[in-house]
Amino acid sequence: MNIAPRTSRLSTRRLDLVAGRVDLTHGAGGRAMQQLIEEIFRPAFDNPILARGNDQAAFDVAAGRMVMSTDCFVVSPLFFPGGDIGSLAVHGTVNDVAMSGARPLYLSAGFVIEEGFPLADLQRIAISMGEAARAAGVAVVTGDTKVVERGKADRLFVNTAGIGVVPTGVEISGDRARPGDAILISGTMGDHGVAIMAHRAGLEFETTIVSDSASLNGLVADMVAAVPTIRVLRDPTRGGLAATLNEICHQSGVGMRLDEAAIPIKPEVLGACELLGLDALNVANEGKLIAVVPAAEAARLLTVMRAHPLGRDATMIGDIIADPSRFVRMATRIGGERIVDWLAGEQLPRIC
Amino acid sequence: MNIAPRTSRLSTRRLDLVAGRVDLTHGAGGRAMQQLIEEIFRPAFDNPILARGNDQAAFDVAAGRMVMSTDCFVVSPLFFPGGDIGSLAVHGTVNDVAMSGARPLYLSAGFVIEEGFPLADLQRIAISMGEAARAAGVAVVTGDTKVVERGKADRLFVNTAGIGVVPTGVEISGDRARPGDAILISGTMGDHGVAIMAHRAGLEFETTIVSDSASLNGLVADMVAAVPTIRVLRDPTRGGLAATLNEICHQSGVGMRLDEAAIPIKPEVLGACELLGLDALNVANEGKLIAVVPAAEAARLLTVMRAHPLGRDATMIGDIIADPSRFVRMATRIGGERIVDWLAGEQLPRIC
Repeated sequence: MNIAPRTSRLSTRRLDLVAGRVDLTHGAGGRAMQQLIEEIFRPAFDNPILARGNDQAAFDVAAGRMVMSTDCFVVSPLFFPGGDIGSLAVHGTVNDVAMSGARPLYLSAGFVIEEGFPLADLQRIAISMGEAARAAGVAVVTGDTKVVERGKADRLFVNTAGIGVVPTGVEISGDRARPGDAILISGTMGDHGVAIMAHRAGLEFETTIVSDSASLNGLVADMVAAVPTIRVLRDPTRGGLAATLNEICHQSGVGMRLDEAAIPIKPEVLGACELLGLDALNVANEGKLIAVVPAAEAARLLTVMRAHPLGRDATMIGDIIADPSRFVRMATRIGGERIVDWLAGEQLPRIC
Repeated sequence: MNIAPRTSRLSTRRLDLVAGRVDLTHGAGGRAMQQLIEEIFRPAFDNPILARGNDQAAFDVAAGRMVMSTDCFVVSPLFFPGGDIGSLAVHGTVNDVAMSGARPLYLSAGFVIEEGFPLADLQRIAISMGEAARAAGVAVVTGDTKVVERGKADRLFVNTAGIGVVPTGVEISGDRARPGDAILISGTMGDHGVAIMAHRAGLEFETTIVSDSASLNGLVADMVAAVPTIRVLRDPTRGGLAATLNEICHQSGVGMRLDEAAIPIKPEVLGACELLGLDALNVANEGKLIAVVPAAEAARLLTVMRAHPLGRDATMIGDIIADPSRFVRMATRIGGERIVDWLAGEQLPRIC
């Protein structure tokens, strides 16, 4: 506490956004934290709700169905081909909200930062978050920053939570798949996880593999407007297509029958998977979705998906079957059948 | 991926909640993560929205004003006199939502866990969160878990985000303080921060000092119902009373005049502050609030506050004055005046 009155309440020095580093004062609730908010976060997220500077964001909503979702992001490295932890943190939560058929509205952002983290990197990540939010038509309206001592966190972790509104008449949930429904995916599998693993491993072809990280709410809005009877939407992130399909079977009490030859995987992703010992069906995607839809609507929904830039490679990969064992069965390329199981161990740590 | 079909999809072994530890598979999106959710989080948070098992929670809302807030929690130690990181994570976000005058409805919960963290501690924290949520009348409806390698995080970090609805006609914001308004606080200052610092320092009298961590939404509901013209509500957490009052001055473009003798601080907290070299006005509280209210309503609001268990020691500590410098001035016990400034450095790392 300063005893002598001073002539100005404003800090005389601005943050050094070139060589400066985060220190413990930036998380202490005092002037340094205010400075971090005013010089980095507020300009990057730039919206009138955040600018009001309260501990909570206020906004008006219409009556109806809302959804809320949250994700923590611990991806390593923080910057990777096709994105960074900031854009990923926006895409991830926008997509979790959108997978209910909802229109995402607002995000919160929480940062746990290791002492010594470069302010330049923090600004770059904040700007990336702001750009991703504007591109998705959402606003980061409230946030929080904590700083921990050197060695107590790995550089930076980000949490986002998001809320959105579900259009009237839309009822999309993981427990609504029914035997006979068609299973569609919006594009190639494995791009995000392989981009990160190839980058970490320093593989030579890494530059050709880029994360698919993207906000899918625009694609979802087109899909829901055209086919409001969609039963299930889900983005196959951690655990990949295999885990997500198993989750749907588990929730809906059904089985699935897939056609391996129908699942699109880029040749360079397949090649990297072979080198890295990965199965592309277990690898995380951050800009793809799975849709379960009544068979009669499948063709129309595919047409709508393919008309959107993020659904160009959309395709049908199988159908829902009655199966009390809730197995995901797959007809393999070589004419056999195998069970596509959940991941047993940890294949890809810190992928998102 | 398991190639051979198995006879059951259920894991045959339950989690070892006595001696088991979190490993990287618990964050991998596969079966181990499902098990963590189903055996620890779902029973602890126990509500039908979460139980549906989607990546987002869905609920109906009425038209009106909503608020959203978020906080990250990195408190060390995880268990402290009067609470733990779980109850604190609920109280903190419930309070941030409530400080708009809103009724908190739903929380999200995000966990970043260090590999090797005891499952027993995780369960204890989850149960504590669930109990705190039920006590506050809110539900933890959606969540996320990430696991990072040993040494990459300090045991456990928690993020919560929350949403709530603001009663019609209530307009509470940090920029609404006006000269002549009264400044009230709900009770003693410094209890939370000193409880943690004394516990860390191993001070002998630590057992008598307990965190004030509590959900203030019940108190706020009583206050807002009785005096809807409240201008500002804020909980003096990080940076303590000093930082929070300075924030209000900064947002509203006003000054303050406090009476040091009117600010209640427990004798044992004052004693610990002397030993630890702390100023109680900079120390975090987690179950107290500041209210700025038109002077004519101050007495009535105090009566309402004192009738609530969490406002028993409520008192008026000063008033708002016109001051372009936005200073918080305090008449000291010894008859002088000093400026109560923002915290310059980091006094209390990892306090919340």
